[in-house]
Amino acid sequence: MNIQEIIAKKRDNKKLNEEEIRYFVSEYTKGNITDYQAAALIMAIYINGMSRKETTSFALEMANSGKILDLSEISNTIVDKHSTGGVGDKITIILMPIIASLGIPVVKMSGRGLGFTGGTADKLEAIPGYRTNITTKELINNVKKVGISLITQTSNLTPADKKIYAIRDAINCMDSMPLIASSIMSKKIASGANKLVLDVTCGSGAFMKNKEDAIKLSKIMKSIGKLAKMETICILTNMNEPLGHSIGNTLEIIEAIQCLKGDIPQDIKEIITVMGSYIIKLADKGNNLEENRKMILENIQNGKAYNKFLELVKNQNGDIEYIKDIKKFEKAKYIIPVISKEDGYVSEINAEEIGKISVSLGAGRTKKEDIIDKAVGIILNKKITDKVSKGEVLAYIHSNDKQKGEEASKQLINTYKISEIKLEKERVVLEVI
Amino acid sequence: MNIQEIIAKKRDNKKLNEEEIRYFVSEYTKGNITDYQAAALIMAIYINGMSRKETTSFALEMANSGKILDLSEISNTIVDKHSTGGVGDKITIILMPIIASLGIPVVKMSGRGLGFTGGTADKLEAIPGYRTNITTKELINNVKKVGISLITQTSNLTPADKKIYAIRDAINCMDSMPLIASSIMSKKIASGANKLVLDVTCGSGAFMKNKEDAIKLSKIMKSIGKLAKMETICILTNMNEPLGHSIGNTLEIIEAIQCLKGDIPQDIKEIITVMGSYIIKLADKGNNLEENRKMILENIQNGKAYNKFLELVKNQNGDIEYIKDIKKFEKAKYIIPVISKEDGYVSEINAEEIGKISVSLGAGRTKKEDIIDKAVGIILNKKITDKVSKGEVLAYIHSNDKQKGEEASKQLINTYKISEIKLEKERVVLEVI
Repeated sequence: MNIQEIIAKKRDNKKLNEEEIRYFVSEYTKGNITDYQAAALIMAIYINGMSRKETTSFALEMANSGKILDLSEISNTIVDKHSTGGVGDKITIILMPIIASLGIPVVKMSGRGLGFTGGTADKLEAIPGYRTNITTKELINNVKKVGISLITQTSNLTPADKKIYAIRDAINCMDSMPLIASSIMSKKIASGANKLVLDVTCGSGAFMKNKEDAIKLSKIMKSIGKLAKMETICILTNMNEPLGHSIGNTLEIIEAIQCLKGDIPQDIKEIITVMGSYIIKLADKGNNLEENRKMILENIQNGKAYNKFLELVKNQNGDIEYIKDIKKFEKAKYIIPVISKEDGYVSEINAEEIGKISVSLGAGRTKKEDIIDKAVGIILNKKITDKVSKGEVLAYIHSNDKQKGEEASKQLINTYKISEIKLEKERVVLEVI
Repeated sequence: MNIQEIIAKKRDNKKLNEEEIRYFVSEYTKGNITDYQAAALIMAIYINGMSRKETTSFALEMANSGKILDLSEISNTIVDKHSTGGVGDKITIILMPIIASLGIPVVKMSGRGLGFTGGTADKLEAIPGYRTNITTKELINNVKKVGISLITQTSNLTPADKKIYAIRDAINCMDSMPLIASSIMSKKIASGANKLVLDVTCGSGAFMKNKEDAIKLSKIMKSIGKLAKMETICILTNMNEPLGHSIGNTLEIIEAIQCLKGDIPQDIKEIITVMGSYIIKLADKGNNLEENRKMILENIQNGKAYNKFLELVKNQNGDIEYIKDIKKFEKAKYIIPVISKEDGYVSEINAEEIGKISVSLGAGRTKKEDIIDKAVGIILNKKITDKVSKGEVLAYIHSNDKQKGEEASKQLINTYKISEIKLEKERVVLEVI
C-alpha cells in the first residue's frame, strides 16, 4: 500500500477501504506522508466526497491516532456536548455548570477560535488565572472534586485531526461534510465520553448555511456515533443571528455570568433548556424532558448553577473576584455606538459578517498564530424583530484601536437590515435528530 | 487576490481568469504559496479540468516564470521538436543531426527520464564526456559553429513548471491533459523556438493510452501554440511496442548510431521521415513533403547525417572514438536471453511494462535522486508480427546484477503475447494534426 495509490483512488472517485484510511491517517501522523500529499487527498475527498462507511473509518482512525481518554474512574456514563460553531456561542459556559449542579459529572474539552467563530477555550481564558490547559490527571481530580472541568483539548488527543484540520484550513477545505463530521466525532470519541448531545448550528453564522445540510451532517454524525457505540443526539439550532447579545471573549464571559444569575436572553434560554434536557436524559437522570427543563431553570433560579460556576473557576485557578464583580474585567478603550439611520424593525443580522468584524477588532484569529485581544468585541443592542428608531443604538463596538473601531462601526451597520414591518421571530431550536 | 480564493474557485469547478493563474504561478515560484496549497489546487485542476483558455494562460505563465531564450542571433525561424514520451524513444538523437545536416539550425533541449519512459539527456550522457549541461552562450556558439546542439534544459527556464511537475509526480497527478499540455508547451515557448513539431505518442507505452485522448491532447497543444504564436504540428504515433529494438541509455545510443549509419528499423524510419518532413517544411526549406522525405533518406545514405552527429558529439565534448567504434561502450556484466516457450507470432508487447522492467534494472529513475546505470537495459529480438519458434530468443536482458537480471527475465516473458496467427502490422504514424 502506498499514498500515491490511495490518492489516485479517491481522485478517481472510488471508495477507500478501512486499511487505506488507516494507512493514510497513521502514516501522516507519523510524518511519513508529506503535507502536500495529504492536501491532494483532502482536496480529492472534498470534491468527490466520502461514504458513511469511509467517514466513520476516518473518524475512528483519527480518534485512534492518539490517546483515548479513560474516564471510567469518574463514571461509566459520561455525556459530552459539542456545537458545530456559531457567533456569540457561550452555551457551554452557561449550560455545563447547570448540568454539574444537577450532580452529573462534566468533562468538557473545547477548541479555540479560528475564522469567524470564537472558541470556548479562549473565552474561558478571559477570566484572569483560568487554566484551560491541564493534565489528564488534574482533569480527573477536578471533576472528582467539584463535578466539572472545562478545558482545552489535551495535546495527546487526535494528533491526526490536528494536522488534517490545519491543512484543511490552509487549502480552503473546511466546509466539507464528511471532513467536518469525522473531525468532530474523532475528538469526541477520544475525549472519553460515551454519550453525546450535538448542537448542529445552521444559518448565516454557521458552517451549514441551510437546514438540509445541517440535517445531512447530523445524520452522518449520528451514524458515526452508532458505529463508535456513542449514543448521539443532534439538536439543530438557528444561527441566523448571533446568540445572545455579546460577541468577544470577555464580553461573552460577562454575558454568561449574567445568564447564570438568571438574566438570560430568549435564544440562549431555549438552547440550554433543550440541550440540557437531553443531556440529563442521556445521563440517566431523568426521562421526562419537561421535568428536566424545569430542573435546569430551577437551578438557575436558586443560584446552584452560578455557585457551581464559581467552584469551577476557582478550581481551574481562575480569579472568582471577577465573576463576583464583573466591573473588574478590563474594558476596551473605545466603546463606539452604532446608530440606526432609519425607523423600523430589525429583519436581518448577518451573523457571519458580525463574526468577521469581531475578528477584525482582534477578538479572533485569522491564522493560528494570532494573539487574541480579550477585551474587544461587539454588543448587540437590537436583535431580529426588535423595533428600532432612527438615532437609536443598534450595537456597540468595543475596540482598543480607534481606527479599527470606526471601520468596524461602518461595516456593522451594513450587517443590519431594517424593514417597515415586524417579521415573525424565527424558531431557535429547529429539530431534534 | 489570495491563494485560498483561487483554490476554492477551482475546487467548485469554476474557471480561473488570467490574473488568478498568473498570481498562482508567480507566487508559487517565489515560494509565497506552500507546496500543500499548490498540491490542493493541482488536484482540483486534475479532477475539474481546465478550459483551453485556462490551459493556455497556465502554459504562458509558466513559460514567463523564468527566462525565455532569445535565439534570434541564430535564426528568425527556429523549429523545435518534442515527444510526449515513449519507451525506447531515440528519435531526437537520430532525427536532429539529419535536420542539421540539411542546413537547418537545431537547438534542442531534452528532459531526463522519470517513471517508465527514458530521457534523451540521460541517453546522450551515455557517450563518455558528452556535456548536456551548458550555458546559453555555449549553446548559441555551438549552433553557430556546427549547426546543432542537443542539451538538457537550462536551469533558469520555467522554474514554475519544474516545481509543479515535481508536485504532480508526488501526488499522482501526471496524466492530466491540461497539465501535460501546459507543461510541454511552457518549456517549448521558453526554449526560444517559434515553430514546433510534436510527436504525440499513444498506446501501452505512452501516457495517452488511446487515440482519442492523443487527438484531444494534440488539439489543446495546437491551440496553445496558436495563442503563443508558435506554429505547431502534431504527429500522432503508435507506442504499443517500444520504438526500435533497444531500451536503456547506452543501448539506445548504439542503436541511434546504427540508424544514422543506415541500419534503421521500420518504425523509427517512418517516424523520422514524417516528423523530419514537417520540420523541413516549417523551417521553410521545402514545401513538398515527399521531396523532404527523400532529402532525409539521402542524407542518411550519403553519410552527411552521421558526420553531423560526430560533429555534434565532438562539439559537446563527447568522445567520438566511441561513436566510431561502438564496441568501446562498456557492456553490462550479465546478458541474459529470454527464451520463447511457444511457437507462433508476436501479437503484443506491453511497452509500459518493458519500460518498468528497464527501470528496475537501473536504466531509469523511480525518483529524481536515483542514479542511472548507463549500461543496463533490454534488447528486443522479436517485435510485433515477428515469427517465433519455441526456444528462440525473444529479447536479451542487460544487467549488472545477476538476481535483478533473472527477475527481469521472468517478468519480460509476460510482456510478450504469442498468437497462432500473424496479425497485420499496426501503422506507426497514425495521424497528422
